[in-house]
Amino acid sequence: MMQLYIANKNYSSWSMRPWLVLKAFDLAFEEIQLNFPCERGEGDFKQRVLEINPNGKVPALLDQGMLIWDSLAICEYLAEQYPEQALWPRDVQQRAWARSISAEMHSGFTDLRSLCGMNIRANLAEVGTKLWQEHSGLRQDVARIEHIWVERPAVDGFLCGEFSIADAFYAPVVTRFMTYALPVSANSQHYMQRVMQHPAMRAWVHAASQEAMWVNYLEPYQKPAK
Amino acid sequence: MMQLYIANKNYSSWSMRPWLVLKAFDLAFEEIQLNFPCERGEGDFKQRVLEINPNGKVPALLDQGMLIWDSLAICEYLAEQYPEQALWPRDVQQRAWARSISAEMHSGFTDLRSLCGMNIRANLAEVGTKLWQEHSGLRQDVARIEHIWVERPAVDGFLCGEFSIADAFYAPVVTRFMTYALPVSANSQHYMQRVMQHPAMRAWVHAASQEAMWVNYLEPYQKPAK
Ligand SMILES: N[C@@H](CCC(=O)N[C@@H](CS)C(=O)NCC(=O)O)C(=O)O
Ligand SMILES: N[C@@H](CCC(=O)N[C@@H](CS)C(=O)NCC(=O)O)C(=O)O
Repeated sequence: MMQLYIANKNYSSWSMRPWLVLKAFDLAFEEIQLNFPCERGEGDFKQRVLEINPNGKVPALLDQGMLIWDSLAICEYLAEQYPEQALWPRDVQQRAWARSISAEMHSGFTDLRSLCGMNIRANLAEVGTKLWQEHSGLRQDVARIEHIWVERPAVDGFLCGEFSIADAFYAPVVTRFMTYALPVSANSQHYMQRVMQHPAMRAWVHAASQEAMWVNYLEPYQKPAK
Repeated sequence: MMQLYIANKNYSSWSMRPWLVLKAFDLAFEEIQLNFPCERGEGDFKQRVLEINPNGKVPALLDQGMLIWDSLAICEYLAEQYPEQALWPRDVQQRAWARSISAEMHSGFTDLRSLCGMNIRANLAEVGTKLWQEHSGLRQDVARIEHIWVERPAVDGFLCGEFSIADAFYAPVVTRFMTYALPVSANSQHYMQRVMQHPAMRAWVHAASQEAMWVNYLEPYQKPAK
């Protein structure tokens, strides 16, 4: 069986993507969760990751002794291995669009990513309001994402109609928009609801919200409850 | 015929990747070069890009009225459209590795990228020596890249034996290592020579070195010659 190495569900946005794809398409896999240390450099997280992946990062997939790392490469690998399912949309034009927006997410949106780190269980609405006012780069990133989402075929559907890898790539953004209560359009909120209702997403978000572990360097905006 | 929109060959590392793939596999395409403005925000570069690509960036590929953007998505699209050629390696394990290292490049190596911007025609060896001493993140990025390169099957071959998309993704790094004269191993230098000798690479590098246009915001380390 395939093994997917991931980190904390509350914080690890890269881990979330291939995990959602595996779950959504009901592909059999074993999940191995290695938690981030509480303080940077502490604990054995890095060492345990390095035992399987020389680049020292999660997510990483082991399939029959073969290692594939990086969320996008893992998803392309899965799409190729399971051609009987539409991990990417079947239509060539939709697939080209899905790949374009996923690759754009993979290498872009640095303001959103660095200012609004994923933190599913948190409510950082006040922080979000402040960040929104102060950072034009954040507003530009969100505007671009809304511009992408509005292109989807149906307001209550996924980015390419059915759930695909593209939705998995934008799922961490959905949780960020909620955690930081960013002011997005009604159209975007429809999409966010659609994603939040997906069974795979519900399972991840539920597990994330149960996680008690506090990772100090991923919590720039709040102090641990006493 | 396909149309590939690119920017200045001297500076645009993202443009270089799909261009090399198209050339190396002899796929028919028309090249449309839109030059960066000399000063940020000046000129009509942005406007002309926006006419074809709503995300405002190059590279962008137009194929039969269909738009595909982002270098990685373009390469995946081409690999899929031309299955008779091995744009990705044919072997499943090599292909998984090629995708992993390409996706890692796509979203990583931010120190190398931000400190050592691509500038093919320049000789910035002294700058490189200084950056090397001062930035441990740069040294770590280079170490990781050398770790990847050394995995290739033959010392005088490409990353997966024959030239593939993976080499196109590391080609801008090759020129950076040269421009900034970063101290890399003999093994890495073999690989760099192999890449520099590829006809597609020679054509790009030659054109880049002929470009006279000076883009101020991409030249943090030198003043224009009078
Ligand atoms: N581009 C990579 C990014 C992977 C990444 O940065 N993973 C983080 C966790 S979300 C990690 O493992 N960080 C550990 C470290 O850098 O020490 C991907 O898509 O998989
Ligand atoms: N991840 C994208 C990055 C594209 C990108 O940043 N392109 C630069 C030129 S190298 C650009 O068009 N910049 C213009 C701008 O941002 O205004 C890709 O791989 O294509």
